[in-house]
Amino acid sequence: MQPFRTTRRVEFCDTDMAGIAHFANFFRWMEAAECDFLRSRGLSVTIDWEGQTLAFPRVAAACDYVQPARFQDVLDIDVTIDRIGGKSVTFAFSFSCRGVKLAGGKVTSACCRATDDERLEAIPIPASYRARLE
Amino acid sequence: MQPFRTTRRVEFCDTDMAGIAHFANFFRWMEAAECDFLRSRGLSVTIDWEGQTLAFPRVAAACDYVQPARFQDVLDIDVTIDRIGGKSVTFAFSFSCRGVKLAGGKVTSACCRATDDERLEAIPIPASYRARLE
Amino acid sequence: MQPFRTTRRVEFCDTDMAGIAHFANFFRWMEAAECDFLRSRGLSVTIDWEGQTLAFPRVAAACDYVQPARFQDVLDIDVTIDRIGGKSVTFAFSFSCRGVKLAGGKVTSACCRATDDERLEAIPIPASYRARLE
Amino acid sequence: MQPFRTTRRVEFCDTDMAGIAHFANFFRWMEAAECDFLRSRGLSVTIDWEGQTLAFPRVAAACDYVQPARFQDVLDIDVTIDRIGGKSVTFAFSFSCRGVKLAGGKVTSACCRATDDERLEAIPIPASYRARLE
Repeated sequence: MQPFRTTRRVEFCDTDMAGIAHFANFFRWMEAAECDFLRSRGLSVTIDWEGQTLAFPRVAAACDYVQPARFQDVLDIDVTIDRIGGKSVTFAFSFSCRGVKLAGGKVTSACCRATDDERLEAIPIPASYRARLE
Repeated sequence: MQPFRTTRRVEFCDTDMAGIAHFANFFRWMEAAECDFLRSRGLSVTIDWEGQTLAFPRVAAACDYVQPARFQDVLDIDVTIDRIGGKSVTFAFSFSCRGVKLAGGKVTSACCRATDDERLEAIPIPASYRARLE
Repeated sequence: MQPFRTTRRVEFCDTDMAGIAHFANFFRWMEAAECDFLRSRGLSVTIDWEGQTLAFPRVAAACDYVQPARFQDVLDIDVTIDRIGGKSVTFAFSFSCRGVKLAGGKVTSACCRATDDERLEAIPIPASYRARLE
Repeated sequence: MQPFRTTRRVEFCDTDMAGIAHFANFFRWMEAAECDFLRSRGLSVTIDWEGQTLAFPRVAAACDYVQPARFQDVLDIDVTIDRIGGKSVTFAFSFSCRGVKLAGGKVTSACCRATDDERLEAIPIPASYRARLE
């Protein structure tokens, strides 16, 4: 699959006193990139789908950091689907800036539906949702 | 009224590349201090109250900055009620560290109830809630 | 002055359990919009300028909230210079979405130079920097 | 080793529109818990140490999520040293609330010194720092 690419500029509030982007921001950026990817396919991390509300709470997230990102850097973020399971999906992300790899990560989410009492119940990814993903 | 005092330590991720706490964090800290104050009175910014769900969306927020806060500083935050109107409440906050004033701010919230279609509707502050506040 | 306009999409992590964008985010967004404005003029909130490092710590920030911003809303942010003083500058921001005003705010910053011992010292805005701003 | 335990209350701004704490916050909380641990031993993630400034940029971070954390939950965070290498250290974190496991994570940091031109250079963990850690 050709990776889906989105970009993001490092903002002042993303930096910390070490003068570089704080590591936790990469997880926010992975989620935003995933949302960009999903939006490009008419999907979302929270969406009304065939009569129920789907949500995708995260069950695992990881990131490896190679080089720091700095204020005003424009990051290229490549998004690929790493694995689609029966009830979960894993996205992989690669961050680079001017061609230099900065970081790589993965986020796994469980497909859930909102129940009437506002809890989330794990369900198989609906076939129609999966078809759009793939 | 004797001010309610709570404390908070400045964390690494609260800092920015200027080496000081980022200004937007003071708004998070005001809200957390307000929640501490409310909790001490059995209240909250979102609470089931006499058969309905109350929420307090913010309608105004402001902060003046005097001195920077730095990593690991323990901030003393004094919380006072600035004004209780019919449908809104304004809290005032004073931040200091080792006796030195760092910042002061105010946050005004509207009293709302969650409607059946998940919107918020402004309502008068219930008398029983107001009595606990004052 | 014709306002400078930038846009920003509300992200999932910007929302809170009330289902709307958390109020503190508007301050992050004001700063990012200010940086976009400054960048368009070859300026920045932290910049090497004529042999010294300038920084613009915030001395006051305020926001009034009219309507909530929601996940995936694309916000239009208009940036204007409210006032340029001798040693400070105030930006005004207006947030709207699909033509509806959501919020308006102001941020005042002091012009400072980094001293050799890594402190910030207030100085008059350099004439050449001011000329680019106006 | 007896785990070091610290606590943290989930704040309103930590929640997202799914009504639970946003997953990226756990990384902020791991760092704050690490800092609490380090502080208890007279150490820090950024510290002047024997004539040089040490910093510990993160090289890897991961978290597995078991149960959601909710507004006002008080989280117990157990901190242990997972591994001390020559130039890096890995901390492990376990999050629970009222005895129920919510999440577990790890963060690996490289020991660096700040160079004169404000870059970070990886160095072996100083023996005196390591002795305090262990």
